[in-house]
Amino acid sequence: MEESKWTKMWLDYHRIYDGGRVWKMVLGGFMEDQAVIASAIFEFKRAIEALTGEQVIDVKKDGTAGNLRTMCIKKQDSVPVEGYRIAGNEEGIVLEASDERGVLYGIFAIIRQIACGKRAEEVAEVASPSNPLRMMNHWDNMDGSIERGYSGESFFFEKDEILINDRTRDYARFMASIGINGVVINNVNVKGAASYLITDKYFDRLESLSEIFGDYGIRLYLSLNFASPIEIGGMDSCDPLDKDVIKWWEDKIKEVYDRLPLLGGFLVKADSEGRPGPFTYGRTQADGANMLGDVIKPYDGIIIWRCFVYNCTQDWRDTKTDRARAGYDYFKEQDGTYHDNVILQIKNGPMDFQIREPVSPLLGGLTKTNQMLEVQIAQEYTGHQIDLCYLIPLFKEVLDFHTYCDPEKDTVADVVSGRTMGNTLGGMAAVINTGNDINWTGNDLAAANLYGFGRLSYDTELSAEQIAREWIAMTFKLPDKEADILCSMLLRSREIYEKYSSPLGIGWMVTPNGHYGPSVDGYEYSRWGTYHRADHLGIGVDRSDKGTGYAQQYYEENAKMYNDPTTCPEELLLFFHHIPYTWKLKTGKTLIQHIYDSHFEGEEEARDLASDWESIRDLIPAEAFDRVKERFGLQLDNAREWRDQVNSYFFRKSGIADEKGRTIY
Amino acid sequence: MEESKWTKMWLDYHRIYDGGRVWKMVLGGFMEDQAVIASAIFEFKRAIEALTGEQVIDVKKDGTAGNLRTMCIKKQDSVPVEGYRIAGNEEGIVLEASDERGVLYGIFAIIRQIACGKRAEEVAEVASPSNPLRMMNHWDNMDGSIERGYSGESFFFEKDEILINDRTRDYARFMASIGINGVVINNVNVKGAASYLITDKYFDRLESLSEIFGDYGIRLYLSLNFASPIEIGGMDSCDPLDKDVIKWWEDKIKEVYDRLPLLGGFLVKADSEGRPGPFTYGRTQADGANMLGDVIKPYDGIIIWRCFVYNCTQDWRDTKTDRARAGYDYFKEQDGTYHDNVILQIKNGPMDFQIREPVSPLLGGLTKTNQMLEVQIAQEYTGHQIDLCYLIPLFKEVLDFHTYCDPEKDTVADVVSGRTMGNTLGGMAAVINTGNDINWTGNDLAAANLYGFGRLSYDTELSAEQIAREWIAMTFKLPDKEADILCSMLLRSREIYEKYSSPLGIGWMVTPNGHYGPSVDGYEYSRWGTYHRADHLGIGVDRSDKGTGYAQQYYEENAKMYNDPTTCPEELLLFFHHIPYTWKLKTGKTLIQHIYDSHFEGEEEARDLASDWESIRDLIPAEAFDRVKERFGLQLDNAREWRDQVNSYFFRKSGIADEKGRTIY
Repeated sequence: MEESKWTKMWLDYHRIYDGGRVWKMVLGGFMEDQAVIASAIFEFKRAIEALTGEQVIDVKKDGTAGNLRTMCIKKQDSVPVEGYRIAGNEEGIVLEASDERGVLYGIFAIIRQIACGKRAEEVAEVASPSNPLRMMNHWDNMDGSIERGYSGESFFFEKDEILINDRTRDYARFMASIGINGVVINNVNVKGAASYLITDKYFDRLESLSEIFGDYGIRLYLSLNFASPIEIGGMDSCDPLDKDVIKWWEDKIKEVYDRLPLLGGFLVKADSEGRPGPFTYGRTQADGANMLGDVIKPYDGIIIWRCFVYNCTQDWRDTKTDRARAGYDYFKEQDGTYHDNVILQIKNGPMDFQIREPVSPLLGGLTKTNQMLEVQIAQEYTGHQIDLCYLIPLFKEVLDFHTYCDPEKDTVADVVSGRTMGNTLGGMAAVINTGNDINWTGNDLAAANLYGFGRLSYDTELSAEQIAREWIAMTFKLPDKEADILCSMLLRSREIYEKYSSPLGIGWMVTPNGHYGPSVDGYEYSRWGTYHRADHLGIGVDRSDKGTGYAQQYYEENAKMYNDPTTCPEELLLFFHHIPYTWKLKTGKTLIQHIYDSHFEGEEEARDLASDWESIRDLIPAEAFDRVKERFGLQLDNAREWRDQVNSYFFRKSGIADEKGRTIY
Repeated sequence: MEESKWTKMWLDYHRIYDGGRVWKMVLGGFMEDQAVIASAIFEFKRAIEALTGEQVIDVKKDGTAGNLRTMCIKKQDSVPVEGYRIAGNEEGIVLEASDERGVLYGIFAIIRQIACGKRAEEVAEVASPSNPLRMMNHWDNMDGSIERGYSGESFFFEKDEILINDRTRDYARFMASIGINGVVINNVNVKGAASYLITDKYFDRLESLSEIFGDYGIRLYLSLNFASPIEIGGMDSCDPLDKDVIKWWEDKIKEVYDRLPLLGGFLVKADSEGRPGPFTYGRTQADGANMLGDVIKPYDGIIIWRCFVYNCTQDWRDTKTDRARAGYDYFKEQDGTYHDNVILQIKNGPMDFQIREPVSPLLGGLTKTNQMLEVQIAQEYTGHQIDLCYLIPLFKEVLDFHTYCDPEKDTVADVVSGRTMGNTLGGMAAVINTGNDINWTGNDLAAANLYGFGRLSYDTELSAEQIAREWIAMTFKLPDKEADILCSMLLRSREIYEKYSSPLGIGWMVTPNGHYGPSVDGYEYSRWGTYHRADHLGIGVDRSDKGTGYAQQYYEENAKMYNDPTTCPEELLLFFHHIPYTWKLKTGKTLIQHIYDSHFEGEEEARDLASDWESIRDLIPAEAFDRVKERFGLQLDNAREWRDQVNSYFFRKSGIADEKGRTIY
């Protein structure tokens, strides 16, 4: 392989065994000049040669292979779309799929199994995707900056131009290897040059990009400026029911699809945090989304409409308004009116990617609307890819959550996959954590979230541990003991971050704007709807039926559970209730003592993470080791700041001393 | 007068009376081709013609004047430097001075008296400056931005170039009219292009600028980068005791003075907030300042060395370290070792321009060192020239403060004027509040601080009210009643701002970085040494002999007074002591009730200011009225935020209800 200026992450194949045979590719029903098939063959050769030292010879359409092994790719229409069956034996491996993407994913599955230690003859799996759409959302700006990016600058944009280079293809390979089939390359906040991505200025480059993506089974999507008719069309309105506006969009979308036939569609953030939208014209969100859906329908495009709509100029004095309610309040009413090619993209929680939130009541609360789950692997509120925070356990909790929207198929995974309603559009999207850093994700260990999100979106039944073990095996060449250590580090990390940051679901308490490090009152008197309401007696937001009523947005079983502080899951206690510091938790500890204990523990456990990393130093490539070690140094500073500021804040406010007499300032 | 794009502030002469006579200028001992004299004559003509409608005819060296009035300017060596005697009678006015500046200031005094309502024949004053140096410090950056600027961009710099235009001369006129005799044009944080102001690149423009200033008796000064030998000299050290470094400075300063013979000297911020300095090389502040002093001595230049040196990476957990102590701790020890042409520039308080601080113990604490008082009329912490905050009463308190450094001449005014020690270098400097806004100071009423600082530095005996009345009379044409209203607004404004912001001298509680608006804990867990230490029982920093010992840095009388909370002036109580919320103040109120009351009152009184302004609407030029009215609107929002956040913070923390049952959130 050629030297390059960036790492290959989990595709940096280590020699697993020396097989000593020669492989021959055999195609049945697929053609080697199909772009995705060609990519699959390329990837197989590249991987097998690196992993096993075995040679792969040229493809024939059919035939047997003497004492060669065969990698036989067969078209088999009974395999679900994008699924595969793989089975190895002494003669080789058979891969069956009904479409090209299935082939590509099957090949990557073979590579994964071998990289994880199986011999070729042991390879076996039957799989098909849980979710139709498995997407990455880049918040990359065209000046090269990345909103909430912690891994360098954009590798898609620089100085208002689109970049295409070797890194682009490597990116597509990574995405395909984990089953991603859609990528939004530009920030949902579409401003400046990005508004012009749907103009002739950028079509040539976008076409090239969509082809590179297409070779790996990925569709290109763009974030759209809802005010485009005004900003680039020179009109004086973007009212979605205005005929001239609709005409403008029809012409525009035709122009776009004439040049970019592979485009998947658009992602839209409207009426959110200062972005324009239908509310400006007294229209509903459905009016806006459906208009665009209708316009794009002739091209089989889709509109992904974000539900992150709330009042971001709240008066902190106002305890009636509750940002947590906003998504449901704004979108539930029009359930059933959204058109078939429109999907609502819903953040996992009702607030904004905190370390602990309840599941958004909109997920499953909508019963007649295409839904997509949005999570964030960019660690905006979870440590900026400095602090280790493996997020797959959090995503698993969300997917496994019973909404009670259906007698049987009622989990979030059921809802967004389409199983509940039998719809075909749905899935999962992640705000991605990549940038042009040498290791793509700033912290080498943050790649586990990138890898993990893709894998989980393809197969929501995978456990967080399975995913972690796959990623470790593919990324590092570690003996079992050290792999166990690293796996344990990943699995503990989210709880550790939670322990030293904001307690029991209340969230926030972060430094305003930047969102790294503590500031307990940082958002307490702000306009963002993000309050903890701590006073000298207690803390928490009353979202019960006596408070904001947010708990009542859930189906009855959940509403009842959340409404009562004695049945509310304790990790969410302060999200739903204002609780006295002297309240006894199920452990027998008081709330205040829990705050102290968890913060002391969290900081200690962060130190354990750092020393665990030190303990496997000899088995990690030096550069990667050092990069991560430096981050752990910063994480310890951060954990200490969180511990001391949170503890001091609550000690100063409550006047209740730590039972164990530890130092609180 | 020509139309211009900016206001003339207090030099926008209104017709006061129509005298109907003709003035003739007579010079005795001065020459009309002396630049400053020419300026004085120009100013007299301009003003008299506008104020009285009387014509001024050409100058003769001597002679009598028939039925003309004469404006007779006489050289009289018994008048102190920069002083003047003016006396009017039926024949005209006689102005006596010993130097050109005295003439210019005398002319402006005549203009002021007439503008304030005296007839020419009533003009009379004997004056000479309290302070040898009366300076403005611009924190203007060469890219045109202004650090802590609230009045637009710089009118000295744009895109790394020096601007010279009509505004430059108007600026000089304003400064001369209030007695300013030195101006530092660039930010004390000298970075980037500003480091190159002492190179050939900028000499031509600086020479022009220094001449324009010179015409108005003003000396140009520059802020200096202490690391210049490294940054522009390419050396690897700026150790002030290194011979090569000293040689570099000698050559450099010679080069500068060859081109800029009128340059007054340099202002230096070293070892402060990340700026380089002598500490880097294990040298003292005196080593640094004296080296530069020696190098500049042959050119009669001076070095003004700022004492704003403190540890800005404090751990908030550390209650032993006290930023308030730092100035005294760093500078007292070397008292007596600073060379004659070195002046230490000391901020009025030990912290940083808060609305209420004790006087820095360094002022008068040094007894053998040239000292200059630094104040800030840029309203960094006092409302950003949005909120009305007339600062002259604050400066008066500082000047009148008895340090006890001398049996008789012990006030700060005595110390910095040179009266205490009999030294000739000293004075006052203000961080200026100007920018290229049409009205120079953002808020038209903030010009009172600009005017007031100059007047006060020239005559520290003037009262805040006298100054306010002068400024009002010169700026607006108001009947007595309305002038009284405006004067009262100015005089009440500082106390009002104090009432609704941080209580009883504790300071801070501002939004980090920006410093506008409240954030009670904004700096509480930071590295800046700025803490209030509030807990559920009380608030304040113990700086007594049982605390940080800061109070002991004062002479005994003050040390004793501050050390005891029962004798400590209550407006500074929380600066010196940690006080329970239940502590009884001299009013009989508890501390917590005082906090509530003062914040409710402050907000109400801010509303009174706004309605007072409304009440004089008809007598204020519409544009100025509207500009100020808009600011009052913002001030009311700010006052309400301060009131509610501070009250809520302390109610939530103390649990003690407002006795009057007003709304606290």
